[in-house]
Amino acid sequence: MSKKINVGLIGVGRMGLVYAEDLAYRVPQAQLVAASDVNPAAEASAQTLGVPKWYPQYQDLINDKEVDAVVIITPTSSHRDIIVAAAKAGKAIFCEKPLSISLEEAREIEQVVAQTGVFFHMGFMRRFDRGYRAAKEKMEQGVIGTPVLFKASSRDPFRPSLEYLDPKHSGGIMIDMGIHDIDLARWLMGEVASVYTVGGVLAYPEVNEVGDIDNAVVTLTFANGALGVIDLSRSGVYGYDIRAEILGTKGTLKVGYLRETPILVMNKEGITHDTVPYFMERFERAYIDQLVDFIEHLQKGLPPSITCADGVADLEVAYAATLSYKEKRPITITKT
Amino acid sequence: MSKKINVGLIGVGRMGLVYAEDLAYRVPQAQLVAASDVNPAAEASAQTLGVPKWYPQYQDLINDKEVDAVVIITPTSSHRDIIVAAAKAGKAIFCEKPLSISLEEAREIEQVVAQTGVFFHMGFMRRFDRGYRAAKEKMEQGVIGTPVLFKASSRDPFRPSLEYLDPKHSGGIMIDMGIHDIDLARWLMGEVASVYTVGGVLAYPEVNEVGDIDNAVVTLTFANGALGVIDLSRSGVYGYDIRAEILGTKGTLKVGYLRETPILVMNKEGITHDTVPYFMERFERAYIDQLVDFIEHLQKGLPPSITCADGVADLEVAYAATLSYKEKRPITITKT
Amino acid sequence: MSKKINVGLIGVGRMGLVYAEDLAYRVPQAQLVAASDVNPAAEASAQTLGVPKWYPQYQDLINDKEVDAVVIITPTSSHRDIIVAAAKAGKAIFCEKPLSISLEEAREIEQVVAQTGVFFHMGFMRRFDRGYRAAKEKMEQGVIGTPVLFKASSRDPFRPSLEYLDPKHSGGIMIDMGIHDIDLARWLMGEVASVYTVGGVLAYPEVNEVGDIDNAVVTLTFANGALGVIDLSRSGVYGYDIRAEILGTKGTLKVGYLRETPILVMNKEGITHDTVPYFMERFERAYIDQLVDFIEHLQKGLPPSITCADGVADLEVAYAATLSYKEKRPITITKT
Amino acid sequence: MSKKINVGLIGVGRMGLVYAEDLAYRVPQAQLVAASDVNPAAEASAQTLGVPKWYPQYQDLINDKEVDAVVIITPTSSHRDIIVAAAKAGKAIFCEKPLSISLEEAREIEQVVAQTGVFFHMGFMRRFDRGYRAAKEKMEQGVIGTPVLFKASSRDPFRPSLEYLDPKHSGGIMIDMGIHDIDLARWLMGEVASVYTVGGVLAYPEVNEVGDIDNAVVTLTFANGALGVIDLSRSGVYGYDIRAEILGTKGTLKVGYLRETPILVMNKEGITHDTVPYFMERFERAYIDQLVDFIEHLQKGLPPSITCADGVADLEVAYAATLSYKEKRPITITKT
Repeated sequence: MSKKINVGLIGVGRMGLVYAEDLAYRVPQAQLVAASDVNPAAEASAQTLGVPKWYPQYQDLINDKEVDAVVIITPTSSHRDIIVAAAKAGKAIFCEKPLSISLEEAREIEQVVAQTGVFFHMGFMRRFDRGYRAAKEKMEQGVIGTPVLFKASSRDPFRPSLEYLDPKHSGGIMIDMGIHDIDLARWLMGEVASVYTVGGVLAYPEVNEVGDIDNAVVTLTFANGALGVIDLSRSGVYGYDIRAEILGTKGTLKVGYLRETPILVMNKEGITHDTVPYFMERFERAYIDQLVDFIEHLQKGLPPSITCADGVADLEVAYAATLSYKEKRPITITKT
Repeated sequence: MSKKINVGLIGVGRMGLVYAEDLAYRVPQAQLVAASDVNPAAEASAQTLGVPKWYPQYQDLINDKEVDAVVIITPTSSHRDIIVAAAKAGKAIFCEKPLSISLEEAREIEQVVAQTGVFFHMGFMRRFDRGYRAAKEKMEQGVIGTPVLFKASSRDPFRPSLEYLDPKHSGGIMIDMGIHDIDLARWLMGEVASVYTVGGVLAYPEVNEVGDIDNAVVTLTFANGALGVIDLSRSGVYGYDIRAEILGTKGTLKVGYLRETPILVMNKEGITHDTVPYFMERFERAYIDQLVDFIEHLQKGLPPSITCADGVADLEVAYAATLSYKEKRPITITKT
Repeated sequence: MSKKINVGLIGVGRMGLVYAEDLAYRVPQAQLVAASDVNPAAEASAQTLGVPKWYPQYQDLINDKEVDAVVIITPTSSHRDIIVAAAKAGKAIFCEKPLSISLEEAREIEQVVAQTGVFFHMGFMRRFDRGYRAAKEKMEQGVIGTPVLFKASSRDPFRPSLEYLDPKHSGGIMIDMGIHDIDLARWLMGEVASVYTVGGVLAYPEVNEVGDIDNAVVTLTFANGALGVIDLSRSGVYGYDIRAEILGTKGTLKVGYLRETPILVMNKEGITHDTVPYFMERFERAYIDQLVDFIEHLQKGLPPSITCADGVADLEVAYAATLSYKEKRPITITKT
Repeated sequence: MSKKINVGLIGVGRMGLVYAEDLAYRVPQAQLVAASDVNPAAEASAQTLGVPKWYPQYQDLINDKEVDAVVIITPTSSHRDIIVAAAKAGKAIFCEKPLSISLEEAREIEQVVAQTGVFFHMGFMRRFDRGYRAAKEKMEQGVIGTPVLFKASSRDPFRPSLEYLDPKHSGGIMIDMGIHDIDLARWLMGEVASVYTVGGVLAYPEVNEVGDIDNAVVTLTFANGALGVIDLSRSGVYGYDIRAEILGTKGTLKVGYLRETPILVMNKEGITHDTVPYFMERFERAYIDQLVDFIEHLQKGLPPSITCADGVADLEVAYAATLSYKEKRPITITKT
């Protein structure tokens, strides 16, 4: 049996804790040996999970010789510095999406990762969801012939805080939310050639204060001529509704579901079932499967399943989609 | 009880026959007293249905004093002449979509209808489908709050003949097919402010020969700020898939279904059901209900449920969507 | 083209009117030439449908030489006398289920039909529903291998009137309601060998007054060893829920649906759709298709699709199921 | 925070390993301190999970002072001896269903548990499934009014080994399989008054060799007058199909689902999805939630959620259902 991978977790906030629990309990070949967060209150959570070492400064975690790999779940604005430090220290890296909200920084990261040659996995958990994986496999098997149209919806069940939404931190709806669908689009269909976005503040007037929008529709054309459309909403008040559909010349695939508990209520008001509350209920297993894949590829010397270049390319499309909305015109994606 | 409406049917082709049967059997207050078609072979069908009079020339049917109303199911290119003649003869008019493939002609028709003051019902059967009607009612009741996003798909299960597709006759995919979704969009959401279209010949290379496309995605913005997206496909090979969804600030409505026979087959290959074959299976009752509405409004002196102005406005949007595809830019709808 | 069949309708009550409209409008090869009902008020309905002749006495309708076939939609207690008269007059006969509430009478009818050799179609519309027909075909094609278990549910959305329920007229829940499922069971699985029934007055205490029950479960064994179970309820308050399932050694078939309008409402309360209100919404087309089959088989000299012997055999099982409930023991079906 | 419960696991076979992993990783308040199995090969699995102590003899595990509670996942025939020993040693006990295949032994166990006063949780994971729990809650809230009918199906996707099926070890299909549905029936509806069973060897002739049957239908009457029906099959070849339905005077609840991966394939053959492969895919979380409940009730001094008396009562009904099949008559349940 291979030696387990010693993992250091940087960032133990809301999402970081999910990663911490997964690394502690559900990824057999990973050993969570250290954690770090600028917030000292997070140390208690790490202790509950039995993480042996705690570093207030991520640099110290990176310098820990015992640590083989770092998992970075910090605010996006800190990604560049941490990745650069970890890459220079020769650590394998897992970084949660988005890579950056700055295209310039993202390209700098890509360069450092290339120069240092470290193993780098760009975090996009949807690629590990059983539904999307099945779609990828069936497309590769030719089940739907040549893909013609990619459709995806992402809807949050409620408005995140204005602080969270502020494009200065989040990058705006395309980079924060649409990037998931953009990544799926590129993975399933190929590179994006152009985008056109319409959108607005349609559900929560207060979103105007931070300068973002709450609903948007992006059309895409792919380099191979196929078409795409993504709709994004912060006001899917009925549940966390994440869907995709790929229409091909021989058939169609639909991915997604919107029912949480296996019970139907049938009465004079009709037939009713519940919906999926939020992302952990929908993608709990995908997060775990992604970490297992990260560790397994690292152990076996395989290339990462999602690369830094994917992170950059996804961001390029998200940038173009944002620009299109602002300038009210289609934008051609130019590869650097 | 009111006097029955004596109807003359102009156009007894494939669709005309469906209308003939509905008028003969399923619209209690209509009396199908005459029919007309340039094709003499159609007379036999009319006789089978017991239609008393047959006119090789539509002018003669229009001049028949017994005829109260004409139902026009002829090729689109003939609509203008027939409508003008019928309007001048003071007949009530039902005309199948699209009004015209020429915006100029459509506006001319609208003028004549206005000047003569005849009752004119623009045929769009989807507005009479129970699903879409329920959506309209629920929106009016406030069930989903303020509408934010309109989504619609129309997919043909196979490619119509190239002759049929030829934009010289059909007007192209937006006017032939997309106009149904455009009409629903306007009915449910309000006037369209701008459109942007991407599309291509992606499934049937031979469609290039006639100069049309076989797949397209149109984004819309509405005058009230809401967003829309329509995807059209001639290659929905798995069935006749017609869907719409309206996302509002308090909830979402989904209209459509894709199962014909109430049977599930469950075996080692999975759980399978059939799909809706084509438009008559999906909208059989909507066609009837539309005719009933036409006759009833005429009898009771109510205004038509869908007006000539709707036909013109729908065509304006379809025109803009076609232009957008050709010029690869968003088009603002300008009302005349 | 064959000569149309001249039909006389006996019984123009609630169900009779449905048959009258179907015969008048939706069965192309039938000509509804006469109608009869003991209730003089029914004559107006017949006139609205344009039925040329009206007979207050069914004997006069039967004696009308123009009448080729009679369709009998009268109260069950009158079936015997009418059928015997019609058979002796050599008329083809369609009789709505159940054949009789008396097994003795049913056998007498069967004898008369056999002696006179008239064409006799026993009305069970479910056999003409597209779902059940698809099940029959798929079973014959071997899709599910050897049938092992037949399951069926019939649920009324509300309690019929006590007058209607009174077993003196209805025969009780097994003969009035369960006979539909029994007929399907025999059609799809083969003859029934034994039954066992449990039941009770569980939803409407007032049903005790007339001596019937409102809920029941019947297990069946078939002559070929397969198993069956039917549950019946007068208290399916959420809708008209009619389902069947056939489990075989290679797969399973499920027939039925419970959604009327193609719209989903999705909000914070969950995802909701409506249900099927009652039998006409569920079986509207099956009633028509059954009449078409009756007329077509008669015209073409084919044997009836459902025979008088089926009506008797179904009743024998319903009788046994009733007896089983009363005597609280399994009952073996004895063929006469 | 309460002291964690030190658990000893007795039985580390196929199911035992599932429990071992759950106890090792997914039940925060449990500490898996020891394991035991007669099969020495099982020790390696325990070591992989990091279980500190291994006992070839369960008696030694029971005598280990550190052990607070034992989880018994051994063959049913060994339950009595292990429970008696554990109870006399004062250990809290979790025992997987069925309690015993002998009613006599089961009653003896119940007596010992009562005399020693130990905490005893009878394992029936379905009660912890989110669907069934939601059903229980909704029934208690009055959502469906008074329950009238309980229906349940359990279908295995393939035949277990003949060795496994042999009633000498399994107790036969009612005790091995039907007991899950019987337990749900009692939990949701109340005590069972009588049963009647039909069944047979209908799918796998070789099941005759061991003297069991492969398909069965059991009708139940409850003490409160309500009705029930359970169908069991070893030949649900399309998937692991576990369903229940409760019809009440105000509505109906349906529990269960039969789709594993959130993807639909839509092509000319129809619309297809996969099914649930087997019990771990269906009840993975219910097994965990049950252990969490066991530990939590023990820690907090609450009574067990499922008692030894439940195990005995369930077995009494399963016994009666088996007897009914053999003697071809309804059996009244007599409480001892």
